[in-house]
Amino acid sequence: MTDSITFDGWTCPLFLRDTPNIVMGHGGGGTLSAELIENLFLPAFADDTLNTLGDSAALDLSHIFGADARIAFSTDSYVVKPLFFPGGNIGDLAVNGTVNDIAMSGAQPLYLSTGFILEEGLSLEVLGRIAETMGVAARKAGVRLVTGDTKVVDKNHGDAVFINTSGIGVIPAGINIAPTLARPGDVVIVSGDIGQHGVAVMSVREGLEFGTVIESDSAPLNNLVATMLGVTTDIHVLRDPTRGGVASSLNEIAKASRVGISFVESKLPVPPSVRAACEFLGLDPVYVANEGKLIAIVPRGVAEELLEAMRQHSLGLNSAIIGEVTDDRPGMVVAKTSLGGTRVVDMQLGEQLPRIC
Amino acid sequence: MTDSITFDGWTCPLFLRDTPNIVMGHGGGGTLSAELIENLFLPAFADDTLNTLGDSAALDLSHIFGADARIAFSTDSYVVKPLFFPGGNIGDLAVNGTVNDIAMSGAQPLYLSTGFILEEGLSLEVLGRIAETMGVAARKAGVRLVTGDTKVVDKNHGDAVFINTSGIGVIPAGINIAPTLARPGDVVIVSGDIGQHGVAVMSVREGLEFGTVIESDSAPLNNLVATMLGVTTDIHVLRDPTRGGVASSLNEIAKASRVGISFVESKLPVPPSVRAACEFLGLDPVYVANEGKLIAIVPRGVAEELLEAMRQHSLGLNSAIIGEVTDDRPGMVVAKTSLGGTRVVDMQLGEQLPRIC
Repeated sequence: MTDSITFDGWTCPLFLRDTPNIVMGHGGGGTLSAELIENLFLPAFADDTLNTLGDSAALDLSHIFGADARIAFSTDSYVVKPLFFPGGNIGDLAVNGTVNDIAMSGAQPLYLSTGFILEEGLSLEVLGRIAETMGVAARKAGVRLVTGDTKVVDKNHGDAVFINTSGIGVIPAGINIAPTLARPGDVVIVSGDIGQHGVAVMSVREGLEFGTVIESDSAPLNNLVATMLGVTTDIHVLRDPTRGGVASSLNEIAKASRVGISFVESKLPVPPSVRAACEFLGLDPVYVANEGKLIAIVPRGVAEELLEAMRQHSLGLNSAIIGEVTDDRPGMVVAKTSLGGTRVVDMQLGEQLPRIC
Repeated sequence: MTDSITFDGWTCPLFLRDTPNIVMGHGGGGTLSAELIENLFLPAFADDTLNTLGDSAALDLSHIFGADARIAFSTDSYVVKPLFFPGGNIGDLAVNGTVNDIAMSGAQPLYLSTGFILEEGLSLEVLGRIAETMGVAARKAGVRLVTGDTKVVDKNHGDAVFINTSGIGVIPAGINIAPTLARPGDVVIVSGDIGQHGVAVMSVREGLEFGTVIESDSAPLNNLVATMLGVTTDIHVLRDPTRGGVASSLNEIAKASRVGISFVESKLPVPPSVRAACEFLGLDPVYVANEGKLIAIVPRGVAEELLEAMRQHSLGLNSAIIGEVTDDRPGMVVAKTSLGGTRVVDMQLGEQLPRIC
């Protein structure tokens, strides 16, 4: 009677990329996130600074406060689940995360705001523990929590607690660090073991145990950055590879700077415990979130001295040069595999691990 | 057999003030909000600037940028329900609200951040309309949306969209405006008709109609403040009476400045439509939220000239002197009623209208 196909009742294992609705992947830091920003937010907001898409906005206040007065301004909301995980909780994650976003412009973070969205019924004892660790984390990072806001939403219209932290830092005179500044010939440094935060959160969420407990690497990176700037101000790009991991950060840099980036898989510091967990979970460590690591892209001439200094720092002990910036394949990231081949390391469409930060 | 009382199955019409859990009132801007901040957040965060509890934090950067370099920094999360209401939506509310918090320190707002927490399944068309109005509102207020973040939470773990906006402004040299600076003898000015935002949101939420549509007064107040500062820099306090309305703002000022405040009920500009709606809903207009009004506390000598200038401004047409600051009853707000009596206008414990902003 009819040849037409009806899709009612079908399920689709693939992302519907042209979905009319928000899907989890829009928050994953991958291609869907990028498309949402590019096609929806940027046209609506229409701002040149926003268009640079750095971890923070570099704001020039020289017309008000005089020569080279620049501040870095950043915001991040935290929706991690569960609230507590090995090595941290949503509170210190929210402090460290925004401290790091500011530090990635070379700025010294000074002030944070905190915005809480609480679900009716949340235990005050839990909220108290989170707030306590935020205070401790702020003092450890040398930043001040100076302004805040609290909203409450009805039960089942939130999820215990969401935290927004925004932050302000001061960019030292003469420092210019941005995702657009990678240049062919530069080398790529990562500041240590990758994949710990994502695996730590995933393990408690799934109730998994991997012999040893894998802890989140959540930590404030501003002191490490200050140490690096003490060695050389000739740093082109800094980025903390959080959502989407090292792979997504390198892709963002490659696109923003219109360069190619290649790295050697075997040079990536992946702890055996993370490697084992990733194999078990079917994850690729280069896409797994970090919360206490940075990627630095610097001229080859300063790389060895910088690496030396980073390895002296408690948050950079296992720093390594993992690759280089090339002028071929602009916008693309490739990995040299242990079998001698080369593979394209693309951005993921959505995310491997929802609600990781 | 037993005389003991068991509370199982009882329901309590009163707030449990010593509740171990978050209740809606903790987000209402009343006494419960104040207690949460004072007893939980302030001890955990331990910061002198936070302790001043202004709408924004005034940050002194003179040690970095030189003499009188000061910025105002503020944050607010918006969870208003429904997302769209007469006179606005969550997007322009989020822009105007943070613009106003910054303006209440006398600062000129310059930059905003936007943090979105989206619920899986939200229509992109709805998100697009919200983002569009944010862009329009920002341009109207003369501020730039320079940095942002987007997170997605699983269906039924959020509520369509929550927005955090944080903002930065520059405080002009010589301006000192803070909730602690009200002095006996000062007069209290309100910039126009009160109660519109709260009633507008409530009417659509409850599906009520009051003959005429009451629209939210959501608007950016920075230009009005600049106009006022053009008349005199001798302004002691500015406050936008949002959650908890005029009554809560006056109570906060009375407590922060350790003064009494008295106002005359009949001097308060309450439009007839708002008055009728409040009677119907059982609300007191002095506790109903506003999003485009300010309270100014100024020396008597500058009040008339200031009032004149405010009434010339489109956002201050119906400005009025409503009361004065006294040295008796410090920390207390009293209203002179139309019957010639006096009543204490206390802070509310929770809130009349949940999720109003």
